[in-house]
Amino acid sequence: MPHLLTLDGMPRERILALLDRAQLFAEGHDLRGSLAGTAVCTLFFEPSTRTRMSFHLAAQRLGADVLNFDASTSSTRKGETALDTLRNLEAMGVRGFVVRHSEDGAVAALARRVRPGTALINAGDGRSAHPTQGLLDMLTLRQAKGDAFERLTVLIVGDVRHSRVARSDLHALRTLGAGEIRVCGPQALLPDDGTLAGCAVSHDLDAALDGVDVVMMLRLQRERMEEGLVSSLEDYHRTYGLTAQRLRRAKPDAVVMHPGPINRGVEITDEVADGPQSLILRQVHNGVAVRMAVLESLLG
Amino acid sequence: MPHLLTLDGMPRERILALLDRAQLFAEGHDLRGSLAGTAVCTLFFEPSTRTRMSFHLAAQRLGADVLNFDASTSSTRKGETALDTLRNLEAMGVRGFVVRHSEDGAVAALARRVRPGTALINAGDGRSAHPTQGLLDMLTLRQAKGDAFERLTVLIVGDVRHSRVARSDLHALRTLGAGEIRVCGPQALLPDDGTLAGCAVSHDLDAALDGVDVVMMLRLQRERMEEGLVSSLEDYHRTYGLTAQRLRRAKPDAVVMHPGPINRGVEITDEVADGPQSLILRQVHNGVAVRMAVLESLLG
Amino acid sequence: MPHLLTLDGMPRERILALLDRAQLFAEGHDLRGSLAGTAVCTLFFEPSTRTRMSFHLAAQRLGADVLNFDASTSSTRKGETALDTLRNLEAMGVRGFVVRHSEDGAVAALARRVRPGTALINAGDGRSAHPTQGLLDMLTLRQAKGDAFERLTVLIVGDVRHSRVARSDLHALRTLGAGEIRVCGPQALLPDDGTLAGCAVSHDLDAALDGVDVVMMLRLQRERMEEGLVSSLEDYHRTYGLTAQRLRRAKPDAVVMHPGPINRGVEITDEVADGPQSLILRQVHNGVAVRMAVLESLLG
Repeated sequence: MPHLLTLDGMPRERILALLDRAQLFAEGHDLRGSLAGTAVCTLFFEPSTRTRMSFHLAAQRLGADVLNFDASTSSTRKGETALDTLRNLEAMGVRGFVVRHSEDGAVAALARRVRPGTALINAGDGRSAHPTQGLLDMLTLRQAKGDAFERLTVLIVGDVRHSRVARSDLHALRTLGAGEIRVCGPQALLPDDGTLAGCAVSHDLDAALDGVDVVMMLRLQRERMEEGLVSSLEDYHRTYGLTAQRLRRAKPDAVVMHPGPINRGVEITDEVADGPQSLILRQVHNGVAVRMAVLESLLG
Repeated sequence: MPHLLTLDGMPRERILALLDRAQLFAEGHDLRGSLAGTAVCTLFFEPSTRTRMSFHLAAQRLGADVLNFDASTSSTRKGETALDTLRNLEAMGVRGFVVRHSEDGAVAALARRVRPGTALINAGDGRSAHPTQGLLDMLTLRQAKGDAFERLTVLIVGDVRHSRVARSDLHALRTLGAGEIRVCGPQALLPDDGTLAGCAVSHDLDAALDGVDVVMMLRLQRERMEEGLVSSLEDYHRTYGLTAQRLRRAKPDAVVMHPGPINRGVEITDEVADGPQSLILRQVHNGVAVRMAVLESLLG
Repeated sequence: MPHLLTLDGMPRERILALLDRAQLFAEGHDLRGSLAGTAVCTLFFEPSTRTRMSFHLAAQRLGADVLNFDASTSSTRKGETALDTLRNLEAMGVRGFVVRHSEDGAVAALARRVRPGTALINAGDGRSAHPTQGLLDMLTLRQAKGDAFERLTVLIVGDVRHSRVARSDLHALRTLGAGEIRVCGPQALLPDDGTLAGCAVSHDLDAALDGVDVVMMLRLQRERMEEGLVSSLEDYHRTYGLTAQRLRRAKPDAVVMHPGPINRGVEITDEVADGPQSLILRQVHNGVAVRMAVLESLLG
């Protein structure tokens, strides 16, 4: 595997190997030397400080030289294509690229054109995939619930239609054999493209929460209002917001996840986000560990 | 002391210990290894390249992994709170935060919510405090004038009302026992909140300069004109600008300080800023040394 | 040579020594330790991600601590002069500065005012000079064509008038004794200031290409249209664009160079830019090597 583009079709053994390695890093094991002298560049055609920082810290901990190429304020404004930008950095000696792009498939398209020895990591493309987020969610889930994914009922709530996080989670959950996957959200925010094959779909959050082990909340992008897909934040919160009261319908030891950044009071209340069942900061912690495992695996 | 939030109330011994350590760094002693593997993040909710660079260089010289989080172009725009941003970076493994914020008390408020083991350094909050600037000013003063602060007459000139630098200098000067502290500026730019307790206040710069050992000039923010607190730069310069001629009223060996960036021709002339009595670049040099001492002390 | 400001007047031996050293780096030799503990700052008063990244990677590979000072979003906006910015960073301990500025001579003017021990590298000033680009072009040329510059016919095509790249290439080509130098472009884009002394000037690209060994294409800045110096991109491409068909007029083993970023379909077609005669990515690769050699030579 020269690149990490998607979890769709990634073999179970490969996922588990990455999670095992990430677990070591999450527990504090550093391998500072393993990427010494290797240059890694974050190349974000769509801004995201949070994900970029997580990759930056991961690469730094492995001893890599890390660069940030802010593609929104650079030669791309002078008309240079994404491929030319990448090829130039490659010619400068950069071996690993962490790429985010607003278009579906853009990272895979770039990956087909680079030299042997260059590795691309998809840090999110369009609505398609965000594989390191999927992996960090699985790591977090495994830490909380153990190896037996087949015993778990997982509920994903919110704007699945526009979510690359949800898609990567679904890919991984299926491969790892999650017992039951439920999806809940307003019709306008659910995909109609086969993404939800095999999932139990619902528009009633109270019912959907019944007896679940895991609730994965998605961020509601404010653009959805402008597009008319959601009438108001208040309405959305009333219908699809996770409150402490609602969460009681889940199993008593159910855990709550969210990819961040969270909209407090919209898709999730403070009480839940900061409560004892929340794994949100654990996900962030695991994000660095998973990215270390991926970088090491592709570039080490 | 898990954080550095203010010099107000910091014991004399603690200040002196930091200055002693900083003195070693200012003389060129590096301890590159002492923060190896520690991630430090500059988190500026108000822009300041200069202070950020100084902390960056300080952390780098101690061997830390340094990250810059530009809070004005990040998730904070997506509605994330400052606390969530900080907690996320903390979860990613960042142990030291250098925080600047436009609101008084904002850094202290954040410091109350972080985990044990996380250290915050206030790099300036509102008008309240800028403790590393206060420390670097004391280090510079001590290098120039020796330990006997009680023999010094110090004059602070300018917009004390809006200045966190002046407040931190006043805190430190009092604790170190400065002999006499004078303050000079237009009434509209002097605070009426007790900040100047014990200071000799004047609106006549010529008289105030008489026989002083140290002149600390403050930057005149251009916003003061828009707010109507100052009529014009020319007027201000005529009344409160430090010229070579005026400086002759001070002691012959008096020194001149300024926190930068300087407005040449407004609060200070080129002749004084670049003259033999100016310690301005020495302050900048000492800034890195003081920040090394603080980082080492909190994170080492 | 405390600084690198221009190739104009640089002795042949000095150029060749830098190229020899750069050749080693281009072949993969790293000297990570040679700038350990040295702080290098890129200080760009005119934006350029690509050149900045190249210097960043070069300094990083030598083990330097690298900082980026984005002069367009910093204290310079608060009215600080370029010299004050540089002196401040110098006082903070930065020893090497990579400076780009839109004004001719601005970097040399700064260089006259810094302390002994501080080194400035001109990363492009106005239309005057871009010496590391000149050096990397010579390195690329030597790799492709050998040491015998006197046997080469070199053609420079495009907006020579506004090009610091062309000026630095001309300085180096003359010093290294290029056999024949031709220049081709529309009259409005050719300089009338003596830059072209000794060059064969033409406005007919087909004729100019006849039998050349090397074609150096220049980027057409879109500003030239706004200034009325070029009527349209289509016209320019028709008259001065390098196509595969036109390139057949050059020697069969002729090579094509371009400083980047390229305007595909304007000054050069995809077929040529990505074709077997193109050295464009080799130039980018050599850029890092040349900058390593220069940094080491000035700061090592």
